[in-house]
Amino acid sequence: MSHTALTYLADNQERFQNELIEFLRIPSISHDPAHQADIDRAARWLADKLRALGANHVEIMPTAGHPVVYGEWLGGGASAPTVLVYGHYDVQSPAPLADWKSQPFEPEIRNENLYARGSSDMKGQTLASVNAVEAIIKTGGLPLNIKFLLEGEEEIGSAHLNEFLTQHREKLKSDFSLNTDAGGMPDADTPSICYSLRGGAGFALTISGPAQDLHSGEYGGVIQNPIHVLSRLIAGLHDEHGHVTLPGFYDKARVIDAEEHAELAALPFDEEFFLKHSGAPALWGEPEFLPAERVGARPTMEVVMFTAGQPKSAIPATASARFSFRLVPDQSAEDVNQQFRKYVETHAPPTVTWDLQFRMSGPGIVTDRKSPPVLAMKSALKTAFNREPIFQRVGGGIGAVLMFKNTLGIDSVLTGFSLYDDNFHGPNEKLHLPTWRKGMTALVHFFHELVK
Amino acid sequence: MSHTALTYLADNQERFQNELIEFLRIPSISHDPAHQADIDRAARWLADKLRALGANHVEIMPTAGHPVVYGEWLGGGASAPTVLVYGHYDVQSPAPLADWKSQPFEPEIRNENLYARGSSDMKGQTLASVNAVEAIIKTGGLPLNIKFLLEGEEEIGSAHLNEFLTQHREKLKSDFSLNTDAGGMPDADTPSICYSLRGGAGFALTISGPAQDLHSGEYGGVIQNPIHVLSRLIAGLHDEHGHVTLPGFYDKARVIDAEEHAELAALPFDEEFFLKHSGAPALWGEPEFLPAERVGARPTMEVVMFTAGQPKSAIPATASARFSFRLVPDQSAEDVNQQFRKYVETHAPPTVTWDLQFRMSGPGIVTDRKSPPVLAMKSALKTAFNREPIFQRVGGGIGAVLMFKNTLGIDSVLTGFSLYDDNFHGPNEKLHLPTWRKGMTALVHFFHELVK
Repeated sequence: MSHTALTYLADNQERFQNELIEFLRIPSISHDPAHQADIDRAARWLADKLRALGANHVEIMPTAGHPVVYGEWLGGGASAPTVLVYGHYDVQSPAPLADWKSQPFEPEIRNENLYARGSSDMKGQTLASVNAVEAIIKTGGLPLNIKFLLEGEEEIGSAHLNEFLTQHREKLKSDFSLNTDAGGMPDADTPSICYSLRGGAGFALTISGPAQDLHSGEYGGVIQNPIHVLSRLIAGLHDEHGHVTLPGFYDKARVIDAEEHAELAALPFDEEFFLKHSGAPALWGEPEFLPAERVGARPTMEVVMFTAGQPKSAIPATASARFSFRLVPDQSAEDVNQQFRKYVETHAPPTVTWDLQFRMSGPGIVTDRKSPPVLAMKSALKTAFNREPIFQRVGGGIGAVLMFKNTLGIDSVLTGFSLYDDNFHGPNEKLHLPTWRKGMTALVHFFHELVK
Repeated sequence: MSHTALTYLADNQERFQNELIEFLRIPSISHDPAHQADIDRAARWLADKLRALGANHVEIMPTAGHPVVYGEWLGGGASAPTVLVYGHYDVQSPAPLADWKSQPFEPEIRNENLYARGSSDMKGQTLASVNAVEAIIKTGGLPLNIKFLLEGEEEIGSAHLNEFLTQHREKLKSDFSLNTDAGGMPDADTPSICYSLRGGAGFALTISGPAQDLHSGEYGGVIQNPIHVLSRLIAGLHDEHGHVTLPGFYDKARVIDAEEHAELAALPFDEEFFLKHSGAPALWGEPEFLPAERVGARPTMEVVMFTAGQPKSAIPATASARFSFRLVPDQSAEDVNQQFRKYVETHAPPTVTWDLQFRMSGPGIVTDRKSPPVLAMKSALKTAFNREPIFQRVGGGIGAVLMFKNTLGIDSVLTGFSLYDDNFHGPNEKLHLPTWRKGMTALVHFFHELVK
């Protein structure tokens, strides 16, 4: 069946790896305007790659933010199914730089791992799909059509993607999407399919007290310190058992049924797993839920940044924090916005003023585990890894999955070949190269399974 | 009496102001090693100034940190009293720079105020003393001896001053010290004498959770966020009425008696005063104490810096804060160190590790309000300002006062010509020039009062 395409993959491994290294050298950090030229360079690099693999049509399509790289191969003909291959070419900031063993944009291979920002999330995953499609096309094609949508704003909440989808709905028409951004294999031997993603709601809260920084001796005792106020607000958001205290926060969170609870309990995502991969001294969280439930099926609140003060003896004029709520079906981000705003209104003392910005949002999603594309992926993963894939809930969110569903009306098949210890978003992000190669093999099998 | 010295002052006002501006242009920020050359330049500038005014002997004396500028004029002879004039030539960091209307090291006069970092705290005050001595010496002297001790580490806790005093005890032998670093006049018409300073204890606390930053979606729910832990620890340090919760914290704090309470109640440091000068929407603090008691006679805890996280969706590996406790007689900084350490030990959860560094310390101090030098200052201030000075407790601390008492065995006369709205340690620090000039006049009267 896919024998020739598999041979093609094997024959081109060295080139694929070199191309990935080239791609990773481009610091396409989407949140930083200083890297605009790198974003554009990464987009052009990808467009060239799509042209080279034999796509019929490739274009870099502008959005109000960073461009989308679009490509199509419609060799399957009008009656054949169409797969929308999703990917993103932007990356997170590499900060804090001091914690990296090698430079984030000078890829280095150590012990079969390729270290670089974006290696796992998700330049490596994006090229796995692209390379698998290349192997199919270059060895004669299949009765399938492929459309690529490779965005440059995933790490900043896919800010302009939905607008883009709305505008180009006809052009993007497909039967379903393949999305390899939902990785997190527990180990290199265990492939996984994701059937649930958490949504999110982001906030920035600033507490303002005195008109300017004040000498902490001259005013300490009569002025409430904005750092203290913000700390109290953050502290009050969790009870002692790790539950978020916002009234109504859990009301709409979909209940995990007994069957799914049993399935999640059987997964390798147990306490020991999270301890090992986090390096934390002890776990934490809602004691009545499994660790796998807590990260996949329960909503959470994290403060991701707290900034205030200077290394001097002063009560600062302001203190600021950024909040990242993770949401599950059927919570609404707007509800959380209302709940959080009410919380601050109720608990912020009269000694300060405050400003709460609602930054970005999207609800959680659960997909059908028995659809034909999902079953094709299940079979392909089993063939490539010689093991049944696990079905997991992933704690992160992927805006594109929700937007594809709502705006294009299509579901996504969610998988990926990143490992839990790849440290995406952190320093020393890596890609396990043998797993990456198995992933490409799995994707070649997947395209064949689709047309069996 | 001091007519000729006063004429000298008047005749040299323009030069004095120009010299102050020159001195303020030197960014002698003591906590920043990048400014080492500026520290040295400021010391040399001061030494030259002392030589020019007619000191018999001037030297820049090294310490393990920044040097002390020492000078003496022993024209009074062996039987005359000796005054040790204290000052410092280092300044606080000007950060945050964006909040300054003019550059911190490019002095600018607006509306009779001289804006620059260090103008009020305390290059202006230091030169007020130096210029008053110049006026005395240049107009024939008095039966008094003067020794100058001008340090470069006040803003970093006078880290090496005590060692210096111990080493040069004989050379520094004096009857008492004049210290103009204890300012904070409520307004330009009301001179003040300080009779109480708070001490301090500084700490740096770092909370460490996971081994590296973790994706907040992948791990949110099972890993306790170091920002949350640190926020809870900070929140727990105050009860809802603004009391510090450390067991035993207030046990040794000297009680304010009814007489002093009545005196403090009569001072202009009321609620309205602190509201006006802070720009905060409302005051805060222990409701059973007057505002003037809360900043002067009660111990406090302020977090002056909180740093954690990045603008990305990650649970940070660490969160850090700096704490500044202000202490009153008869509290001991070491007691507070023990109490704080025990608090963190008790309340830090097993999900994190922590590191608490005890940075610097000194107890609070109360001085004799009826000593001859204090009475001389009282009379001099009344003459210069045409109003009785108030006696106030100042909330800040001055390490030198305590070290002079303990190591040299001498008391300090504490005054100063900074105004409460001078915004020392904050942006747009300023010096009110008419008050500064009156201050120099007062100091000339003071030296004459001493030998009456």
